[in-house]
Amino acid sequence: MNYKQLFENIKAKRSFLCVGLDTDITLIPEHLKSEKYPLFAFNKAIVDATARYAVAYKPNLAFYEASGSKGVLEFEMTVEYIKKNYPDVLVIADAKRGDIGNTASRYARAFFETINCDAVTLAPYMGADSVKPFMEYEGKWAVVLALTSNKSADDFEQLQIADQNPLYRTVIETSMEWGTLDNTMYVVGATRPEKLREIREFCPSHFFLVPGVGAQGGTVEEVSEAGMNSHCGLLVNSSRGIIYASKGEDFAEKAAEAAKSLAQKMSAALKSKGL
Amino acid sequence: MNYKQLFENIKAKRSFLCVGLDTDITLIPEHLKSEKYPLFAFNKAIVDATARYAVAYKPNLAFYEASGSKGVLEFEMTVEYIKKNYPDVLVIADAKRGDIGNTASRYARAFFETINCDAVTLAPYMGADSVKPFMEYEGKWAVVLALTSNKSADDFEQLQIADQNPLYRTVIETSMEWGTLDNTMYVVGATRPEKLREIREFCPSHFFLVPGVGAQGGTVEEVSEAGMNSHCGLLVNSSRGIIYASKGEDFAEKAAEAAKSLAQKMSAALKSKGL
Repeated sequence: MNYKQLFENIKAKRSFLCVGLDTDITLIPEHLKSEKYPLFAFNKAIVDATARYAVAYKPNLAFYEASGSKGVLEFEMTVEYIKKNYPDVLVIADAKRGDIGNTASRYARAFFETINCDAVTLAPYMGADSVKPFMEYEGKWAVVLALTSNKSADDFEQLQIADQNPLYRTVIETSMEWGTLDNTMYVVGATRPEKLREIREFCPSHFFLVPGVGAQGGTVEEVSEAGMNSHCGLLVNSSRGIIYASKGEDFAEKAAEAAKSLAQKMSAALKSKGL
Repeated sequence: MNYKQLFENIKAKRSFLCVGLDTDITLIPEHLKSEKYPLFAFNKAIVDATARYAVAYKPNLAFYEASGSKGVLEFEMTVEYIKKNYPDVLVIADAKRGDIGNTASRYARAFFETINCDAVTLAPYMGADSVKPFMEYEGKWAVVLALTSNKSADDFEQLQIADQNPLYRTVIETSMEWGTLDNTMYVVGATRPEKLREIREFCPSHFFLVPGVGAQGGTVEEVSEAGMNSHCGLLVNSSRGIIYASKGEDFAEKAAEAAKSLAQKMSAALKSKGL
């Protein structure tokens, strides 16, 4: 999927919602825990209930790897299910990988060939080597960490570089040269709308994947106001606020309600920007 | 395994060799490709042939993930085999994970509980949140990327921070406060011995995991001269130079020869430091 197609999907669904599938075996409803593939069973129900409100899903690998190779199998089953049944939805592997070129190319193969993900989140610390191999796949995306939503983003991401810019700005400005609008996105946390606004100024066109709405405290309104561009340019993620809206048998129904509520706010935000 | 035990193992084996298990399904000998678990079959033979010369093994997750969940299963089988048959050998999951605290704790569970690794490599970009959960396990290690061996380490790792230090120095000096000598190591590439020497000056006691010997160009002598301390303080990794020393049926035998050759150089380096 390229930049234009992603924008078309957003306009068609009137939503730029990404549902984070941080599917924790200890937090899913009791009645699913006896399933052979409980993480997949949970995800399938969540996806079927929320797909009309979502343009992207973001399974977070840590939650699958916590169950070992069986968990990774359930991740694969989830991706396959989404791509088969909702082919216009972007699947972002939230894996935060990053390694030397020789190794990065294997990670790219893992996520883009072995498994049919559309995008992977990447840690930029090791530089171009660790990101470029993901940009060599037509229609696939490298989602580069820029300014994340956690408190300890201050430890390094916000350090001032000698030329006066913070590290996250250098990361964005440098890596914008490596790829295109069709294969590069940035992770920019929702918990710092003033930073989102500042980043939008020097990175006007790229899509941003924005976590931190809901459980972490950011709002759709703030994020839209600070970061939306003429092609929307935003995928706003909510994980826990949607998938754990209820821990009972009505979990999928409640997830749909939570997703719908966010999508309605997104629709209003798009409208107010004339999109 | 703690700092003292690791040093004792190095003294007992007269080696500080880490064998990198970058086991690539396309590069292993032909006769193994028909095995049900070819990556594991290769690793088992390599480990049995080299364990007398190695104090650590470092499977790189990318190469297993490239085969999907089945590859991850073979990674698990490899770790289990090593820990059962060579319990005094450190198993380092070269995974370069890094995420917010809630997620990092799941990765720690994945590598330290679900799978019995002793150590995990971590990308520091997101700060303390992403590293500290790995330091909460007795006898386990967080191996933090500092200055890596790839060319594009220059992109960000070597940026000058406003207080005049390069980013990698700030990463090390900051994260030294998070843990102890018993649970924290740093990745410092072998391809820049002068940097290794500089880092040893401000980080005198920690163990460094040093990749880049062999295929990437560094030598045991240079690394030892620049980085060894009174407790050795080095794990020097070689991957391709050992595991692909031969691509024929004698691959394990040739791997043992390559490992023995490095271990002999390490023994000499230890002796010359009076260890």
